[in-house]
Amino acid sequence: MAVRAAVAGASGYAGGEVLRLLLAHPEVEIGALTGNSNAGQRLGALQPHLLPLADRTLTATTAEALAGHDVVFLALPHGQSAAVAEQLGPDVLVIDMGADFRLRDPADWERFYGSPHAGTWPYGLPELPGARAALEGSRRIAVPGCYPTAVSLALYPAYAAGIAEPEAVIVAASGTSGAGKTPKPHLLGSEVMGSMTPYGVGGGHRHTPEIVQNLSAVAGERIAVSFTPTLAPMPRGILATCNVAARNGVTAESVRTAYEKAYADEPFVRLLPEGQWPATASVHGSNAVQVQVAYDDAVGRIIAISAIDNLTKGTAGGAVQSMNLALGLAETTGLTTIGVAP
Amino acid sequence: MAVRAAVAGASGYAGGEVLRLLLAHPEVEIGALTGNSNAGQRLGALQPHLLPLADRTLTATTAEALAGHDVVFLALPHGQSAAVAEQLGPDVLVIDMGADFRLRDPADWERFYGSPHAGTWPYGLPELPGARAALEGSRRIAVPGCYPTAVSLALYPAYAAGIAEPEAVIVAASGTSGAGKTPKPHLLGSEVMGSMTPYGVGGGHRHTPEIVQNLSAVAGERIAVSFTPTLAPMPRGILATCNVAARNGVTAESVRTAYEKAYADEPFVRLLPEGQWPATASVHGSNAVQVQVAYDDAVGRIIAISAIDNLTKGTAGGAVQSMNLALGLAETTGLTTIGVAP
Amino acid sequence: MAVRAAVAGASGYAGGEVLRLLLAHPEVEIGALTGNSNAGQRLGALQPHLLPLADRTLTATTAEALAGHDVVFLALPHGQSAAVAEQLGPDVLVIDMGADFRLRDPADWERFYGSPHAGTWPYGLPELPGARAALEGSRRIAVPGCYPTAVSLALYPAYAAGIAEPEAVIVAASGTSGAGKTPKPHLLGSEVMGSMTPYGVGGGHRHTPEIVQNLSAVAGERIAVSFTPTLAPMPRGILATCNVAARNGVTAESVRTAYEKAYADEPFVRLLPEGQWPATASVHGSNAVQVQVAYDDAVGRIIAISAIDNLTKGTAGGAVQSMNLALGLAETTGLTTIGVAP
Amino acid sequence: MAVRAAVAGASGYAGGEVLRLLLAHPEVEIGALTGNSNAGQRLGALQPHLLPLADRTLTATTAEALAGHDVVFLALPHGQSAAVAEQLGPDVLVIDMGADFRLRDPADWERFYGSPHAGTWPYGLPELPGARAALEGSRRIAVPGCYPTAVSLALYPAYAAGIAEPEAVIVAASGTSGAGKTPKPHLLGSEVMGSMTPYGVGGGHRHTPEIVQNLSAVAGERIAVSFTPTLAPMPRGILATCNVAARNGVTAESVRTAYEKAYADEPFVRLLPEGQWPATASVHGSNAVQVQVAYDDAVGRIIAISAIDNLTKGTAGGAVQSMNLALGLAETTGLTTIGVAP
Repeated sequence: MAVRAAVAGASGYAGGEVLRLLLAHPEVEIGALTGNSNAGQRLGALQPHLLPLADRTLTATTAEALAGHDVVFLALPHGQSAAVAEQLGPDVLVIDMGADFRLRDPADWERFYGSPHAGTWPYGLPELPGARAALEGSRRIAVPGCYPTAVSLALYPAYAAGIAEPEAVIVAASGTSGAGKTPKPHLLGSEVMGSMTPYGVGGGHRHTPEIVQNLSAVAGERIAVSFTPTLAPMPRGILATCNVAARNGVTAESVRTAYEKAYADEPFVRLLPEGQWPATASVHGSNAVQVQVAYDDAVGRIIAISAIDNLTKGTAGGAVQSMNLALGLAETTGLTTIGVAP
Repeated sequence: MAVRAAVAGASGYAGGEVLRLLLAHPEVEIGALTGNSNAGQRLGALQPHLLPLADRTLTATTAEALAGHDVVFLALPHGQSAAVAEQLGPDVLVIDMGADFRLRDPADWERFYGSPHAGTWPYGLPELPGARAALEGSRRIAVPGCYPTAVSLALYPAYAAGIAEPEAVIVAASGTSGAGKTPKPHLLGSEVMGSMTPYGVGGGHRHTPEIVQNLSAVAGERIAVSFTPTLAPMPRGILATCNVAARNGVTAESVRTAYEKAYADEPFVRLLPEGQWPATASVHGSNAVQVQVAYDDAVGRIIAISAIDNLTKGTAGGAVQSMNLALGLAETTGLTTIGVAP
Repeated sequence: MAVRAAVAGASGYAGGEVLRLLLAHPEVEIGALTGNSNAGQRLGALQPHLLPLADRTLTATTAEALAGHDVVFLALPHGQSAAVAEQLGPDVLVIDMGADFRLRDPADWERFYGSPHAGTWPYGLPELPGARAALEGSRRIAVPGCYPTAVSLALYPAYAAGIAEPEAVIVAASGTSGAGKTPKPHLLGSEVMGSMTPYGVGGGHRHTPEIVQNLSAVAGERIAVSFTPTLAPMPRGILATCNVAARNGVTAESVRTAYEKAYADEPFVRLLPEGQWPATASVHGSNAVQVQVAYDDAVGRIIAISAIDNLTKGTAGGAVQSMNLALGLAETTGLTTIGVAP
Repeated sequence: MAVRAAVAGASGYAGGEVLRLLLAHPEVEIGALTGNSNAGQRLGALQPHLLPLADRTLTATTAEALAGHDVVFLALPHGQSAAVAEQLGPDVLVIDMGADFRLRDPADWERFYGSPHAGTWPYGLPELPGARAALEGSRRIAVPGCYPTAVSLALYPAYAAGIAEPEAVIVAASGTSGAGKTPKPHLLGSEVMGSMTPYGVGGGHRHTPEIVQNLSAVAGERIAVSFTPTLAPMPRGILATCNVAARNGVTAESVRTAYEKAYADEPFVRLLPEGQWPATASVHGSNAVQVQVAYDDAVGRIIAISAIDNLTKGTAGGAVQSMNLALGLAETTGLTTIGVAP
């Protein structure tokens, strides 16, 4: 008996990506597709790559439209998920791909989003210590941000192993789909092609407190994070370069051991062989995370680098992976570690 | 019982793409992977996006290595397939993704390739009239060139319906993977990004006689083809713009009817709704073909445009589709019409 | 004594490009910079590549702001130039980079733009027969569209020499800046990178009547034009592939002679050596036009291909070249044939 | 009387860029153009964007070919400059765009290049303290590496002002032209488009000791540098994100003051208004450096970011700027701060 899934916000990039994955998921049947400004339009006009759904029409995002599904994916502007979730009842699996339920500290939320905090849901990054258990059987899931996914998976093994000082410097490059589908001048193709530019510098990016939350929980102490995101001329992908001082006594071997141990059994995270570095093209469209780590003994620092597809593992793939856990399906069902390259 | 498949030339783009698709094919088990200059290397170093095969090692392309498989895909430099195929025996399904067995007229082959003609195998473009039947049960398949796939599917309905004059002007833009993985100065990223440039202008491209062959067979008369390929700054995709004079009495309606009829039942070809145009991004990584056609009554010409992924439907996807037919599997097994976009 | 120039519409791509060129022009002093929705903003925020003008502020586009200049460049939405020009007086050189004054036939204008025709000004493509003389001393100039510039320079020598039949098939690829700076979903970087797509197919593009006008004037008979523009994943550049049937008796030599003759003395048009093909990267930021032509005797057709920078020779460079002629300066003043590559 | 300049290594990216700039330089006449593997070829075939030089032919790089010039630019593989320079005599201005004469410490050279150290020449980054004076009248100049140019200009003001701790974490993204024109598989357009990937991680990049040298000289103590370069999908540009701990007592104001003071009078470096961030597109083809700095008081760190064109200010523009100083010309002659955007 198929799991019946609805997607609220089906016209945007996160919504489109979750539909792409659900179409390939053997246990899922796609139900309602909703949108607000695009209600009434054919999906074929909005997501022309989803040919099997081309003739479906978006309806407005209402409780009625979303009723009667086993799973509802929310791909809504931040601040809107709580109201929708409340109407869905406790037995429906609600998976929020927005930011609303990621942060534990209401003060963090209010500082970065300027509105009341909606709450905290189990966090959909199964690879973090303790996260998988919290997702199993859950009926509410907060999908992590794309940068926090990439950064947490690059750095948590160092903190779990106690080999890193509690201050992390992170520079990440993201493809433009991370900025969404709402047209803005700086996101025009003419502007982004051939250009790299930073944004949210100096602690201003909303994913900063989420990164701090994840790493601090693993480390057992507060990790200071200096995070600089940059916009790269590509549609998809995040490359996160994370740099931390090593604790005394750390060696190249102890660094590698920490990462090997963390990822020995993870189906989606691949610690690359020494000398090979992650590339976003290699995880294009896949749920895989490529990780590599180096110890620079000249300066006593650990450099951990990850590559993900921001829309797949960074958003919709993480959502489906968490859905699988919540529903008791095999965690990898419907997901791939094979990228579309070149 | 799984179909056991080998890939000769597994380090290149065609070989990598056929492996990507076979990994997702429910009836196939991947056997030998061979290469020549790369024999002995880990596939993970050569095709880092194929994580499940990362620890496999390439062997040399020998009869011994390729023996014992049900299907052998050949992704070899042109002129090398015949010798390998001969060694494989008549019961093995040999699928040549190179050019060697596509052309029927030895003179065409000799003029464009400068070597003796190896022969002609059933042509792996099932959508062409009569092609599907020839592929069913066959043990030898010649996979079409990427441009001929895109162009033939854009134009054949016009010739099948007798609405077009026998002279076609075609301009196609291809992503750079069509030019292969051998490093050449003009294929460097620094050269291709931000640039459009033609090549093989004036009838010189080796895909020209294959296009002529396909269209002429459908039309029942020789079609003169003026084909100009261009290199576009993208890794994948072909957009073929085909322009033919309409025969007397043709109308916008008769044009549309011809295309609707041709593609009503084709699982991989989608005639788009009027007003929507093909985009290569929409078929990225998919086996779908997006087609649209317009009749310009001011000049009495038909403009038919198709978009494919040159590596998927244009090469490896067409190969797998044909393999399915040859083996008696459902034609769409292991293939998708869902693109990876944006 | 410097020529004092104002730019109306300084926040868009055409306005930015004319400023880039005027900054390098030894005879010009930049005066008023106007915009409407962006009035009051620093140019540094709108055109961050124009560092010498970063601290200039846009004013509203009014007659007062534009008064007191020797030259006024108009980079306005179509339909707005006539009203502004009227207020500027007959002694001011007004150079319209919009479409308003390009077409000679009011019916053409009305069919493609749906508003009353404003008139016809001398046409700023000096390379066309007779055009240079009409520009010398003129005080009104209509800058050609970017596609008509590329196409007319690729094809006019064939019509001037009487070697081509009166029907042209044209497929052109344009960088995204040709679509302007107003944010629209299909122009987002996420949408355009990695994608080729056509638009305005079947005679619908507004540049079609302008191409017909140019070629017909040269040929002395009406030329039927089937023009298909495509959007390419690059910020700048047009590659125009033009295909015409050769008249009886035409040979490769007579084709080449026609082009050599046409461009022997043109400072900005370069007929490339045989075997070398135009590339948009080679003319990036330059006013040069690269042209190549081939005769395909298998089908009796001439393929003429040009590459330009749509913003430079295709818009602002053509405007400055025409300004030079109108003001009696050397035609090449302030312009370059050197591209920024790779 | 014109300065007569020769370029050794005219077929590569550095050589092509210096020619592009010299063509626009009012005091320079271009003399010999040499190359080794490309000797005998037309420059038009190798550098098709340099139309005015298209008909020049490369000669072999010999002392005879380079004799009789006032300035010789060397764009040679590392290790070859010393032998050529020796033959040119002490009165010829020799400008090495390679690495051979940048490092002061022979041990640094030997460790990173594995060959004997050739020596140290005046360093062509005039903006660094003391550098300008050393360049004036010099007849030997070592042009900085592209990354050291971007990083040193982003960070030196912090060290000059004594506001930063002596440990810098740097992540820089470079366009592919920084990797040169020699074809290699990982530099193919198919590989780089849509992909971000690091290289030389963990202190391995050869520009690391040069960065350490520059910053340490300014700081008066050894600066530990953790430098991670990444390859970005664009032909040109470097975005350098530099992150250092602030010393006690540092405030946002003191940080800004340090940078304002450093760059108040520099013709090519622009400290952007607060809130505006550097973008590589804005300096495409220009000699400008865009710099911005932020103080993140939540973590007590300074983030300084610069954007340059790696081929212009990062290589050939820096070379011409230094040439101007050496020859007593105005420093900005022939150079621009205007980028080619979008």
